[in-house]
Formats: sequence, C-alpha cells, structure tokens
Amino acid sequence: MDSKELIIEELVTDVDGVLTDGKYFYSDQGKILKQFGPHDSDGFKIIKSLGINVRAISADHRGFNITRKRLGDMGIDVHLVSEQERFDWMKKNCDLGKTAFVGDGLYDAGVMSVCAYSFAPSNALDLTKNAASYVTKLRGGDGAIFEVGMELLRIFDYARYEKYSEGKING
Amino acid sequence: MDSKELIIEELVTDVDGVLTDGKYFYSDQGKILKQFGPHDSDGFKIIKSLGINVRAISADHRGFNITRKRLGDMGIDVHLVSEQERFDWMKKNCDLGKTAFVGDGLYDAGVMSVCAYSFAPSNALDLTKNAASYVTKLRGGDGAIFEVGMELLRIFDYARYEKYSEGKING
Amino acid sequence: MDSKELIIEELVTDVDGVLTDGKYFYSDQGKILKQFGPHDSDGFKIIKSLGINVRAISADHRGFNITRKRLGDMGIDVHLVSEQERFDWMKKNCDLGKTAFVGDGLYDAGVMSVCAYSFAPSNALDLTKNAASYVTKLRGGDGAIFEVGMELLRIFDYARYEKYSEGKING
Amino acid sequence: MDSKELIIEELVTDVDGVLTDGKYFYSDQGKILKQFGPHDSDGFKIIKSLGINVRAISADHRGFNITRKRLGDMGIDVHLVSEQERFDWMKKNCDLGKTAFVGDGLYDAGVMSVCAYSFAPSNALDLTKNAASYVTKLRGGDGAIFEVGMELLRIFDYARYEKYSEGKING
Repeated sequence: MDSKELIIEELVTDVDGVLTDGKYFYSDQGKILKQFGPHDSDGFKIIKSLGINVRAISADHRGFNITRKRLGDMGIDVHLVSEQERFDWMKKNCDLGKTAFVGDGLYDAGVMSVCAYSFAPSNALDLTKNAASYVTKLRGGDGAIFEVGMELLRIFDYARYEKYSEGKING
Repeated sequence: MDSKELIIEELVTDVDGVLTDGKYFYSDQGKILKQFGPHDSDGFKIIKSLGINVRAISADHRGFNITRKRLGDMGIDVHLVSEQERFDWMKKNCDLGKTAFVGDGLYDAGVMSVCAYSFAPSNALDLTKNAASYVTKLRGGDGAIFEVGMELLRIFDYARYEKYSEGKING
Repeated sequence: MDSKELIIEELVTDVDGVLTDGKYFYSDQGKILKQFGPHDSDGFKIIKSLGINVRAISADHRGFNITRKRLGDMGIDVHLVSEQERFDWMKKNCDLGKTAFVGDGLYDAGVMSVCAYSFAPSNALDLTKNAASYVTKLRGGDGAIFEVGMELLRIFDYARYEKYSEGKING
Repeated sequence: MDSKELIIEELVTDVDGVLTDGKYFYSDQGKILKQFGPHDSDGFKIIKSLGINVRAISADHRGFNITRKRLGDMGIDVHLVSEQERFDWMKKNCDLGKTAFVGDGLYDAGVMSVCAYSFAPSNALDLTKNAASYVTKLRGGDGAIFEVGMELLRIFDYARYEKYSEGKING
C-alpha cells in the first residue's frame, strides 16, 4: 500500500457489528438497547485529523434512534440506508475511488469491491473478511474503529503512527 | 450429503442459545431483556428463499413476550412448547422426515435424532453437538442461523452459495 | 472418586460468577440488572433428582432482590451471607462432610477446603480453581451448574449419565 | 522488582476498560448502563490493606453519574478528568514517583511513562500494554483490579500473598 497511490477523502462505516458487537437488547417492547465500546471515539478523532470525512450508514430502522443518539454524541452523521439500497446509495453519494468502507455483513462485502479501501472487524462474516482490504485484530465494539484509525495513520502519517504506537501522545 | 436424497420442507429452531447466546437479564421484577444478534435475519431470508418454511419453538414462558416480539419483527412464528413436550410436539406438528431442527440444549438432542437434518450452534452442550448433523462455527446470537442458511444454500443451491461466499450479492 | 465413599446430601452454591459471569449492570440508580444463563435450571433439576438438597448463598446485598427473584423462579432458596461470614455460616448450617460447594471467588476457596466436594466454574479465580475438586469446562452463566449436575450424575447414577450424554432423554 | 526500591503510596485507576470491559449501553436517551464485574471490590480492599490510597479518574462525562454510583458503592473517590487533561492532572495531583497507575487506552500510555509502576488489563490497547509495567491476565471487568491487588500483595506482603494464593483467607 502506497500513500502516493491511495487517496482517501471519506470513510463510510456501518454501525452494528463495527461500533458494536452486532448484538442488541430486546424487551417485550422491542429493541431498546445497544452496546457500544471503547476507543472508537479516539479512532474517529484520528481519522478526522487526517482530513478524512466520516459518515455512518445503518440498515437498522428499529434501532435507529439509539444509533443516531450514539453517533451524534461522537459528532458523526448517520444515514438510514436499507441493506438492499446500500450498494446504490454508496455509488450515488460517494466518490468511491476515494472512499474507504467499514462493514461486517453480507451486503457490505459487495460494497467493498467498489471502494478504494475497505476494513472488516474480526467478528465480520468470513465472506466479508475475504472481501476486505484489511481485517482488524479487534472486534466490533472492542475498538475496531480505533484500529482502523491507527492503520490509516500508518498509511498517511507514519511519523505520528510511530509516536502513538509508542504511547507518546502527550507533550 | 446429497440434495437428491435430502428433502427439507421446514426448519424448526429453538430460540434461546440459537438466536441468543442463551443469556437473559433479570431485574428485581424478573426476566426483562434478551440479547439477540446480527446476521440471523439475513439467514432466515436465505432459508425462506429456498422454499423452506420456518417456525420457532421456545420453552421460556417467563421471557416469551420478549421472544415473540423479536421473532415477530423477523416475520417468524414462535410457539411456546415446554422442554418435556418438545419431542411430542415435533412428532405431532411436523413431517419429521422433511424437517431440519436447530437447538442447543439437553432436550434438543432427543429431537435431533428423529429429524431429517439438525444443526447445533458452537455454544451448544457437548451432548447436543454430538447429536447434530452439523455444528456451526458461529455461536448462537453471533450469526449461527446465518451459517445454517448458508449451509442449506450450499446443499440446495450451490451456485448461489458460491456467489454469496464471494460477496457477490449485489447486481 | 468412588460413590461408596462420597456421600452428598446437599449442594450449596454461590450465585454471582457461578449462575452468572459475575457481571452486573449499573445505572445512575445503582445495580439494576444481572445476566443469568442457559442450562442451569436443567442442572438443578438433575441435582435434585439425585436426592441432593440445593441452597444458594450470596454476599451481594445490593443485588439481592435480583438474585432472589431469579433463584425463586428456579425454586432454589437463597441466603444473604457476607463473604467474611461465609465460612462460619457453612460450618453452622451444613453437614460439611456431606456437602458439595460451588464458588468462584477469594472467600469460596476457604470454604472448599472443609467440604466433601467442591466445584469451580472455569471463570473462577486461579486460587479458587486450585482449591476445587472439579473445575467445570463451562463458564459461570454459560451452563456451569448444568455441568455440575452431569458430573454428580456421573458419580451417583452412571447409567442415567450415559443416557443423557448420548442425548437420550426422551421416551 | 524489589519492595525496598519501589514505594507505592497511591494507586490511580481509570474506570472504563479497567473496572468494566469498556462497553456501555445506549438507549435512545443516551448512555444508561455500564457493566461492572466480580472480584474488584476484593481487590481494592487488598490494595487499601497495604496502606495504599486509591483514587479513580474517568474521562466519560456522559456516564459519570453511573461511574460515580458504582465507585461510591465500593468506597472509592472518582474524579472527572478529560483524556487530554489526564497527564497534567496526574502531575499536579499525585506524587508520581510513588504512584501506580492502571489504564487501558491511548492517553493512559503516556501517563504510565511518568508513574512509579503501571498496570494494563489484558483487554487494553497493544500500545498501552507495551507501556505498562505489568499486564494482567484478567480482562477489565473480569477481575483485573483483583489481580492488581494480588500483584501488589506479592510485592509488598509476600507471606499474605502466598496464603491467599493457597485459598487460606479464613481463620
């Protein structure tokens, strides 16, 4: 991978399975809770600091108010896009040759094939991991987006990547 | 396994431990939450697309309203059947020679022995996994039903199985 | 282990870390939820079917109403006993030479040394697992008590153990 | 490590990822639950019994009322300190040459380099584990602080460490 060849202007990420472990909590009233995780907020800050725009998409209409609340708290716009429409939405709304995509599911694999770069968390389906440029060691909801941020840092700002890797973020 | 010999007209699945990791959440008011997971809704769609009818059974009467809400959201009928009655219910309500069964517990193992085909998620009891035709790599609540769907696709529609496996679901 | 030498008239089990994975959920109002798991209800039924009385003890006074609700739903009496009092409570309330104990924590290890037999789930502290007669493969909240039941069945009713192990529970 | 050379008068611990697995639960109203775990209360008691003062810091302002409730229940003071301020707060408020620090994230690694001793739970980021003096085998929320307590006991009171390791806590 060569940063002279690869240009990433935007990162689009799926939510469930990437920012969560894909699980959600039902009461007898329906879907009421999702479990988000650590480090991803730091990851998004790193990605944005590289001048990369970040958007999220989610097909989960029943849990969308939960998703929107969490993403809003991290300052990320999220769009409700059904899985069947995902492929067309990406083609219409993104400059795919300069877009990185993060996803874990069946419909994400197809999107990855048309993006400049793609990430799957380690908990993704096998077929999705096979389609991704990079599979994170961390699971969704366990810091996968942080690892995405560090990998983009490694590609686009190696000096800062090395500094962070050595724990030298202060001073 | 040969699709000429195996005919599956219906899949009956247990819920807790198959569509969840078997855990549930208690407050001082009782069982109030269950944790469901990713990809299973896609799995059920694949199974139905093969012309296989899908029903769920659950012995959990305390959590049945939660179970019914989630299964209803996925368009699956669910029946409350105690574990002791499970064996007889299956014999009475299913054409067992053309039925696949998915389960994880003590009473599921007995049902498996009389069905045409059976699946256990990787988190099932050892004795249940020993009784199953196929043990999924994925855990219940982590996509076990998706893997069941892919395995049935492999058996009954290999061309589509290959296409999905390569992430070619779009266009 | 020889069933002629070992007599178990009662099983006393800790709750958190044995019937759960030890975790609990806090809101800004305090501890409001615990996560219980599959198969343990079947495990208790097996233990009772061997003529072994079952009691639970818990040191968690903040979550005791949750614990009591869950244990009550399984028909098990539960006593609030602080960790410091656990050792003395057992000596006073149990015939220790005919008692099996299940626990996962620091204070449980001491109790195990004076009981006839003891079990630790695989998630117990190392020092507790070292003190136990038998360490379950399953984790607390993932069926550890079911495995305890199967092990007691193996010791005291091998024919039924073999039948269950082969999934032959019906008919 | 030699207890004659190492003096620890205070332990400062991060909360999320150390006393929890880093995850939190969102409803459409925001962050409403965190999952804490077993053994850490025992761990804090061991640490305090060594004459070591304990304070907690957290950067999570949205979940701070939850954090404060749990820490208060364990008798630990917790301070809201943003991740960017963490380094300066430690320098201002602690005698760093006599302070041990526990953390799991990006900003914790920098703090570790200026403290007398440091711990990272096994679920910490790789860069944080690289910066720590000691990486616990246990995960945050699964007893990591208990293991910290046992390790400090090993360093500063080996006789009691040996006794506890053998499960001899009673009588």
